[in-house]
Amino acid sequence: MKTIQQDFQVSFSYGVHFTEGLFDKQNTLLADLLRQKSGGTGAAKVLFVLDEGVAKAHPQLTTDIAAYAAHYADTLTAVAAPLLVPGGEEVKNKPAVLNQVLEAVHRFGVCRHSYLVAIGGGAVLDMAGLAAAIAHRGIRHIRVPTTVLAQNDSGVGVKNSMNAFGKKNFLGTFAPPFAVLNDSCFLLTLEDRDWRGGISEAIKVALIKDAAFYEQIKQQASRLVAREMEPMQELIFRCAEMHVEHIGSGDAFEFGSSRPLDFGHWAAHKLEQITNYELRHGEAVAIGIALDVTYSKLAGMLSEAECNDILSLLCELGFDIYIPELSEGLDTPAGKLHILQGLQEFREHLGGQLTIMLLEQIGKGVEVHHLDEGLVTEAVNQLKHWHTEKVLLPTS
Amino acid sequence: MKTIQQDFQVSFSYGVHFTEGLFDKQNTLLADLLRQKSGGTGAAKVLFVLDEGVAKAHPQLTTDIAAYAAHYADTLTAVAAPLLVPGGEEVKNKPAVLNQVLEAVHRFGVCRHSYLVAIGGGAVLDMAGLAAAIAHRGIRHIRVPTTVLAQNDSGVGVKNSMNAFGKKNFLGTFAPPFAVLNDSCFLLTLEDRDWRGGISEAIKVALIKDAAFYEQIKQQASRLVAREMEPMQELIFRCAEMHVEHIGSGDAFEFGSSRPLDFGHWAAHKLEQITNYELRHGEAVAIGIALDVTYSKLAGMLSEAECNDILSLLCELGFDIYIPELSEGLDTPAGKLHILQGLQEFREHLGGQLTIMLLEQIGKGVEVHHLDEGLVTEAVNQLKHWHTEKVLLPTS
Repeated sequence: MKTIQQDFQVSFSYGVHFTEGLFDKQNTLLADLLRQKSGGTGAAKVLFVLDEGVAKAHPQLTTDIAAYAAHYADTLTAVAAPLLVPGGEEVKNKPAVLNQVLEAVHRFGVCRHSYLVAIGGGAVLDMAGLAAAIAHRGIRHIRVPTTVLAQNDSGVGVKNSMNAFGKKNFLGTFAPPFAVLNDSCFLLTLEDRDWRGGISEAIKVALIKDAAFYEQIKQQASRLVAREMEPMQELIFRCAEMHVEHIGSGDAFEFGSSRPLDFGHWAAHKLEQITNYELRHGEAVAIGIALDVTYSKLAGMLSEAECNDILSLLCELGFDIYIPELSEGLDTPAGKLHILQGLQEFREHLGGQLTIMLLEQIGKGVEVHHLDEGLVTEAVNQLKHWHTEKVLLPTS
Repeated sequence: MKTIQQDFQVSFSYGVHFTEGLFDKQNTLLADLLRQKSGGTGAAKVLFVLDEGVAKAHPQLTTDIAAYAAHYADTLTAVAAPLLVPGGEEVKNKPAVLNQVLEAVHRFGVCRHSYLVAIGGGAVLDMAGLAAAIAHRGIRHIRVPTTVLAQNDSGVGVKNSMNAFGKKNFLGTFAPPFAVLNDSCFLLTLEDRDWRGGISEAIKVALIKDAAFYEQIKQQASRLVAREMEPMQELIFRCAEMHVEHIGSGDAFEFGSSRPLDFGHWAAHKLEQITNYELRHGEAVAIGIALDVTYSKLAGMLSEAECNDILSLLCELGFDIYIPELSEGLDTPAGKLHILQGLQEFREHLGGQLTIMLLEQIGKGVEVHHLDEGLVTEAVNQLKHWHTEKVLLPTS
């Protein structure tokens, strides 16, 4: 018996760039990026994939993209008009859309040194990112996230995905993007739900890692609610920075069982599914955080004052911290919350031992390997009570 | 305008193990591997995916696998009887089979720390490897290659794939396996075509990198034709070793445009497609080598004696160095070989600048960025002549 041992490392590198008016002719960011890496082989081929919702909110966008490509014709060639795809989580349930993107890559001869530029919310980026990752074993993928959530969390990381067999993100790969281009102009046209939605991911990462950032969000809460751009840009930058640091300094491709950035997510993923994705990801994460924070308090890990402080902030920002679906299943003969199935699915998705992040204090997460089902039920009931009675929570 | 820069490395590690009788109860290789990495969370879940052709040639195999799992029940749990899938290149054209494997991963709760063990020829490993790579963003994949080609080349590397839109390997990822287990017992039942087929990849790697290995193959040619196991095991080991070394020391995920191990492959891929995959990969590679070697001679890079030496060796081993499909298209009005389209498709698949490996001398490849279409046609005509006239080639 003989063995050949293979050991090697692969280096990945990309920038998350913050800009305004990405497709203004004066804005050289995209052209500079493409020029830098084209290796002198002429204009780079670019396939644009565009979220229909974004196209609708920005009717001039396709014209701007065409004008931009014409202006920088020596640097980039748009292989066709942007391919329009449906936005929102539903697109991740549609293999036909994924196939449409792959077919365009094939038809227009987009190669491994050409580019797929996806413009849209997190779901469109997830879907288009998977297409880019598996076509020719990976073509260059540039993400242009258009929501708060995508700009500060999902869009800056290394994952892509589709849903399958009723399981969120069942299909996907780890595939670092070629670049991420965060254009704050896209935030101006967001619905309130989506403006707010991404804030929950910032609260999440602040809670487990950075008490000062949590304080900053708290100080700016009323301005965020009033849709002021400056505090939102600060929030997005810091949140994106923390995500990027976390990925770069740790287990980027998640070979282990620990995924601290999924604080609040085990319940969130299941809630999205139970509500047929009518609850959006950021909204589900807010409820997931509320649940795990309340659980942390009930388990004696987190002070009541800090727990209430967090729930109050979520409410102030306009998040629901409870929806009836959270209690679903409890009054059936089995008498078990459906949400608890999310624990098993979370473990299965991550692999190995169940590992859940809870909170010890604001700014300090702690991992556990077991949740008590009775305590989860009690936490759900407390959230229901607070939500229904609109009890004013005592804060620190 | 601000930028967050992300730079990180990911480490990969796996062993290519050579064994006999992998599923004999006395053989602890697989059980040891699973025990090593299970992290003390009990028996590892294993989904076996089995090439129907292998199951037919080894009727006792499914029983042996079940008995092995029962014997090592503390270490591994087979989640079901092996999932049988069609073998041969055709399976890579069948998304339904890929979906069947994914569905089994879902149904049996195979997680990121569980295992998909695929047993079969290169095509089955390519397909099952893609399923393993995209389910939950990658479950642990153990390859058990059963052909010479898969044991010494495709099965030991980091790629997987499916065909789509009429393009070979259009879909796929770079995803290092968890381990590769080469069991020489599987070679005993191979058809002559498959026994011979994998030898072409050994000749390929020898030609571009290792003259001594080329001499070794030449010395053992008659024993290889007589299907002696010892020289074949030596050939497979050295060929696998060179592939592993090449991947580990270079551009493992092929971010550049150079792919030296694809010597002879631009024409081979196209020939497989033109013949509807009736020509098998190793057979196509032999013709691709013959073509590029003849081209190298016509371009004044390689001596006539060495060119003839290589063609003679291919013939001695039983390879065709020409088939009529190689000339296809030449007598149409356009008058251009269909095979030449393979150049463009090869460039597109790899990305960037066309980069083709040619030969300067035996053991020394050299990369060029252009092939002369007239010379390719002349090379095809020379191969046709030699093949038709059975001219005895003068060797060094």
